[in-house]
Amino acid sequence: MSGTNQRIDSGRLWDALMAMAEIGATPKGGVKRLTLTEVDRAGRDQFAQWCHAAGLTVRVDSMGNMFARRPGRDPSRKPVLFGSHLDSQPTGGKFDGALGVIAGLEVMRTLQDLNIETEAPLELINWTDEEGSRFGHSLMGSGVWSGVYDQQTTYGLRDLDGVTVLDALEGIGYRGEQPAQPFEADSYFELHIEQGPILEHEGKRIGIVTGGQAQVWYDAVLTGQDAHAGTTPPSTRRDALLGAARIVQLVDELMRARGEDGRGTVGRLQVFPNSCNVVPGEVRFSVEFRHPSGAEIETLAEDFPARARAIADEAGLGLELRELFRIPAQPFDPECVALVREAAERLGLPAREIISGAGHDAIYVARRVPAAMIFTPCKDGLSHNEAESILPEEAADGCQVLFEAVLARANRPL
Amino acid sequence: MSGTNQRIDSGRLWDALMAMAEIGATPKGGVKRLTLTEVDRAGRDQFAQWCHAAGLTVRVDSMGNMFARRPGRDPSRKPVLFGSHLDSQPTGGKFDGALGVIAGLEVMRTLQDLNIETEAPLELINWTDEEGSRFGHSLMGSGVWSGVYDQQTTYGLRDLDGVTVLDALEGIGYRGEQPAQPFEADSYFELHIEQGPILEHEGKRIGIVTGGQAQVWYDAVLTGQDAHAGTTPPSTRRDALLGAARIVQLVDELMRARGEDGRGTVGRLQVFPNSCNVVPGEVRFSVEFRHPSGAEIETLAEDFPARARAIADEAGLGLELRELFRIPAQPFDPECVALVREAAERLGLPAREIISGAGHDAIYVARRVPAAMIFTPCKDGLSHNEAESILPEEAADGCQVLFEAVLARANRPL
Ligand SMILES: NC(=O)NCCC(=O)O
Ligand SMILES: NC(=O)NCCC(=O)O
Repeated sequence: MSGTNQRIDSGRLWDALMAMAEIGATPKGGVKRLTLTEVDRAGRDQFAQWCHAAGLTVRVDSMGNMFARRPGRDPSRKPVLFGSHLDSQPTGGKFDGALGVIAGLEVMRTLQDLNIETEAPLELINWTDEEGSRFGHSLMGSGVWSGVYDQQTTYGLRDLDGVTVLDALEGIGYRGEQPAQPFEADSYFELHIEQGPILEHEGKRIGIVTGGQAQVWYDAVLTGQDAHAGTTPPSTRRDALLGAARIVQLVDELMRARGEDGRGTVGRLQVFPNSCNVVPGEVRFSVEFRHPSGAEIETLAEDFPARARAIADEAGLGLELRELFRIPAQPFDPECVALVREAAERLGLPAREIISGAGHDAIYVARRVPAAMIFTPCKDGLSHNEAESILPEEAADGCQVLFEAVLARANRPL
Repeated sequence: MSGTNQRIDSGRLWDALMAMAEIGATPKGGVKRLTLTEVDRAGRDQFAQWCHAAGLTVRVDSMGNMFARRPGRDPSRKPVLFGSHLDSQPTGGKFDGALGVIAGLEVMRTLQDLNIETEAPLELINWTDEEGSRFGHSLMGSGVWSGVYDQQTTYGLRDLDGVTVLDALEGIGYRGEQPAQPFEADSYFELHIEQGPILEHEGKRIGIVTGGQAQVWYDAVLTGQDAHAGTTPPSTRRDALLGAARIVQLVDELMRARGEDGRGTVGRLQVFPNSCNVVPGEVRFSVEFRHPSGAEIETLAEDFPARARAIADEAGLGLELRELFRIPAQPFDPECVALVREAAERLGLPAREIISGAGHDAIYVARRVPAAMIFTPCKDGLSHNEAESILPEEAADGCQVLFEAVLARANRPL
């Protein structure tokens, strides 16, 4: 049985986090480890090597998701899963994703050191393309695994250079044999930085995540007409960038109309032909909205397309608006959440319940397997930024809570 | 003496235009011959070969401007210059620039065919980087030649991939020996498509260009903070794209406040880190205004920076706004303009006076040498667009006017 006198090695945890952060390190102290690139391959290879050294068996599925298994005493029991992702944003930080994977590795290493055998087998997971910044779909690997995304369609998604997911997977040699689909599993736990300011503001060390907020994402293309900037009079212009500017403002308005819980973002935008003296004929951009209430997202998914279309019509522009996905608000499993709460209490760590603002693999996995998440604070609530930072003690506390929750679950009487 | 019974060869002119349009041809029927690229080199090589075959001597200056000379009977006379540019926009048409160069070649070929000797020498010019779309400065080659731009500074300008003008010039082997600076010249004539709708609407065949409008161009960088789109509440966002959207609308407003003569354009815009789920921390974009009245441009150059700064301040964003250049309204030389008018009259071509909406090399050259321009209509006034199109007869009429104006000037009694 797990007990509060068994401790993970916080120095080893921090060293492994810093070693992983070297892979794709940016001059400004962040990380650029875009999914399915050579840098991602290097991160994966390092992870696999560490897993082998810790006595784990590594499998890779057809989406490149990696599973590192430690046998349990009772081979008939379903495994307890835990993990996160090693891919990063283009200007990402050292901890977003990596914390959950490396802390999971530290859990495995501690069990090995202390010679602890669990009842159920354990599996540590590195999900492929959680960030979504390269191919436009966040939670890609876990999404296919959970059956939310179709694998063939996902294989065909392209990055801005036209490279498909399938080519990228094969390019780095991480298209595995095993089909990416749910297998029998007992539960899933994910440790992650909060990526927001709440825990820090309230002086809490642990976030007991009770669920994820609802989201809707779009791809938009506005089409006007390329024209000469010097000769084309106001009355005959069909300026796609002007239309996009109005929609960017609409997204912001719809967000603010929902107060501090609202989220609305145009994060990616490209102009064509993108020449100083050409009235832009085409603009392609992303739009996403989030809210803790699924009903608000349903309303937005009605209102936004209609209002965006009205803007395009008024400006004489064509608008192609594709809804990429809609994620309902996802509550986590009460029993798994309770294990997180109990671990934090046992350890005497100030904690609070929290809803995740970010999307996480746990949110899709929760559709198939009882799941829960653990948050740790991050400085100034900053994430998706090279300046993202956490303290070694914060990492250690989060890892210890993960350790205790996983052990409690793996050894629970059935 | 030139007479109206000497005719350029309209079939040969069209064939040469179409042959040049093959170099960098795009699938949509346009041309992508960006300045100082391998495609531009191919266009230049072809042009030089045609010039040699027509008995001309070709010089290249330190900015890559090409001068193809035909001697005159009187070696003491200053040369009559004419030409335009062979570079294009990223999604450009077949005629913007190429018409003036290839029609100039046809003038030379006709003189050779008909064994006509002019009093003054003639020089046909292909100016480097008229479009400005790669390095951000339009009229680059003629600007340095005329002493408006400093050559060392210009050599250091970079494209979006960080390649400098100097490296690009040397890369295609077109950095010539002769210094790019004004030499003694009699006059300069440039034939160009109108790139606007006026001639076509009024059923005119020839535009007698009396001058160019005033312009001011800027480079802008807005700085906010990269942040997670899912966790960052409205109150703490510093979204650089939202600020840019407001400035795009401001530019449009300032344009429309000046009626149909106003021009205001954001043609180039780049978002960083450009990831769907990251609130953008930086946006870089171009701004340009134009107006036939220099006074309006002076007013805009006062108002716009102040109002853009107010937008940035209100949004908590940093704004770096750099004025790239300001071109005053430039009248052309009355005597040269008269030669264009007389040629059109002699040929019985419906013509009207017009102010150029686009920038042209003639506008900088006019600061050093008496200059004039000839416009021909283009379909729907469309330019900086792959669908740009003109009729063979329109090309021939423009070329014939150029022929007559050049001959009249080269043979005028001194
Ligand atoms: N955790 C995280 O940053 N996920 C990226 C997916 C999203 O929330 O947009
Ligand atoms: N003629 C032409 O299209 N020139 C490009 C420079 C400009 O007017 O912006």
